[in-house]
Amino acid sequence: MFNINSLVQQLPSSFISAVQQTIDLKTKPQGSLGLLEPLAAKIAKIQHSLSPSLNAPCVLIFAADHGIADEGVSLFPKAVTEQMVLNFLSGGAAINCFSRQNGLDLTIVNAGVSCDFVGVEHSGFINKPIAKGTNNFSVTEAMSEKQYLQALQQGADIVSSKYNAGCNVIGFGEMGIANTTSAAAIMSALLNLSGANCAGKGTGVDEAGVLHKANVIDQAIELHQLKAASPAQVLQKVGGFEIVMMVGAMLKAAELSMLVLVDGFICSVAALAASKMEANFIEYTQFCHQSNEQAHQRLLAAMDVQPLLNLGMRLGEGSGVAVAYPLVVSAVSFFNEMASFADAGVSNSEG
Amino acid sequence: MFNINSLVQQLPSSFISAVQQTIDLKTKPQGSLGLLEPLAAKIAKIQHSLSPSLNAPCVLIFAADHGIADEGVSLFPKAVTEQMVLNFLSGGAAINCFSRQNGLDLTIVNAGVSCDFVGVEHSGFINKPIAKGTNNFSVTEAMSEKQYLQALQQGADIVSSKYNAGCNVIGFGEMGIANTTSAAAIMSALLNLSGANCAGKGTGVDEAGVLHKANVIDQAIELHQLKAASPAQVLQKVGGFEIVMMVGAMLKAAELSMLVLVDGFICSVAALAASKMEANFIEYTQFCHQSNEQAHQRLLAAMDVQPLLNLGMRLGEGSGVAVAYPLVVSAVSFFNEMASFADAGVSNSEG
Repeated sequence: MFNINSLVQQLPSSFISAVQQTIDLKTKPQGSLGLLEPLAAKIAKIQHSLSPSLNAPCVLIFAADHGIADEGVSLFPKAVTEQMVLNFLSGGAAINCFSRQNGLDLTIVNAGVSCDFVGVEHSGFINKPIAKGTNNFSVTEAMSEKQYLQALQQGADIVSSKYNAGCNVIGFGEMGIANTTSAAAIMSALLNLSGANCAGKGTGVDEAGVLHKANVIDQAIELHQLKAASPAQVLQKVGGFEIVMMVGAMLKAAELSMLVLVDGFICSVAALAASKMEANFIEYTQFCHQSNEQAHQRLLAAMDVQPLLNLGMRLGEGSGVAVAYPLVVSAVSFFNEMASFADAGVSNSEG
Repeated sequence: MFNINSLVQQLPSSFISAVQQTIDLKTKPQGSLGLLEPLAAKIAKIQHSLSPSLNAPCVLIFAADHGIADEGVSLFPKAVTEQMVLNFLSGGAAINCFSRQNGLDLTIVNAGVSCDFVGVEHSGFINKPIAKGTNNFSVTEAMSEKQYLQALQQGADIVSSKYNAGCNVIGFGEMGIANTTSAAAIMSALLNLSGANCAGKGTGVDEAGVLHKANVIDQAIELHQLKAASPAQVLQKVGGFEIVMMVGAMLKAAELSMLVLVDGFICSVAALAASKMEANFIEYTQFCHQSNEQAHQRLLAAMDVQPLLNLGMRLGEGSGVAVAYPLVVSAVSFFNEMASFADAGVSNSEG
């Protein structure tokens, strides 16, 4: 469905060497900019350019409700998904502050919230719900196959339109009461881990709450027979509309050679699913932060990726992407702007 | 010499509660912005304001040469200190890129480089060396008591002039071939740790080089009888002009209720010395990153502080401060701009 090139395999080796040499000849000890160095190399490779640029950066927030909320897996009532979407649209949420600060265009997508948003008009709002929330996956499948495919396609289409407007770097965020439980169930199925290894505190449930989430997950994996199931099956049975839309959006972004910025636990689960569907996907991603959600560290390790930040954040909404974005800019900035040893007349350690 | 108030002890408890309440009533789960939350609280307390602001942010880079470089403790020749100062002034170093990106005013201070900078004129250059480098502290004291006091005062004076120009947030960086060895010696003396626990790779020496640095340090601690010595004695015997100037500058900044942003290993050692001289100092600081220099993690743990970034950087120059600065802006931004649950009509987890 998506055609994602392997950068490592398809770029000329001379270009790959030139990227590394550009970095190594800057006036600094080799490797001394840490993670900013491989990030700069990644962006140069994605863009196949020795003068990469970040154009029209944007963040998409996908919001949806979850039938699984009926199992009491979240501290907050379901109505908060709608309320938070309205908060995003009025500019008062964390993601609004951080997007404004860092020049990120913000678009909110109603992927399937349990309300109508009657009369809500906003240039940054895409109101195309698949349905008013998923089904409770502890009872039945979260969504139909048709809904799954529709969500995947819609995510891809939204990214295409951002690409056509000149965007080459795109971050993802989400909002959905109970969606840590859906994400943890997907992780559990795709990595063959117990619910206890994937469930966490979410918005702040206590130890008994985490145990309850773990049980809900284990039972759903059993109910839907998801051990060794395909990513598509897993997403359909226990996923959420915002999560599936993100998967489609992320895969499309990689196909279009955009840099994909991944937020916290739920986004990372979407990235995991995307990488299970298209192995080359991961070459186009930068994970922005390690959240305080317990399973996130395990998930990042399973994908062998290093996030930029580890600030103990656990908010979602794309807030980790927006806070980390200046570090992405720093990577491009040193790559393009720093003097080389020769330019600056500085002796390097060899001479 | 410096009069630094304790925020905890001197602010009204009603104000301290109001700061925490401002943070807790924002539309997010409590604590979900991780380290940004205590950072926002710190800035509000330093400024004694519920609408804190970051004004005229600047970075000072103190540069100096070190007699200890004669012991072969660095991969780079001493001449690189001068060359890098010129690189800073021509705008080609990492710190230039990151300062431009993040709107930081950059000032380079010649605290004691081994050259004359004849004809070098630049609005961002303060050319007031204490001497052309320190003495080799494996043979004699790095500097005289008079030089030590002069450096301390000069650092304080430079900060006062930034403060008078409207700056209330100030970052520190340094440049000086061999200054990781001086910094490690200071750490060794002030924390009563062996040289091996304080020496690291610096700009990239190998294992034998690290061992050599450790031996140089242990011998210097012995030679100058620095076990249980005062911070002033330690700084004078094995310090550097840029390090001592930073100590004076940092202490003055705290005295003036400015937020102090600390860069990597060498800056953190200056902050350690400052905190040993004035215990309240640490309340005014934010450590910006944990460098890849081996001893840095131990040092940060000894001060019980958490840095914002852990990107594996090890460049110095204030680069960690400049890269991390947008996170400081994010802390102030969410504190001032985010809606509260009541403002936004969002249900919180209690209701």
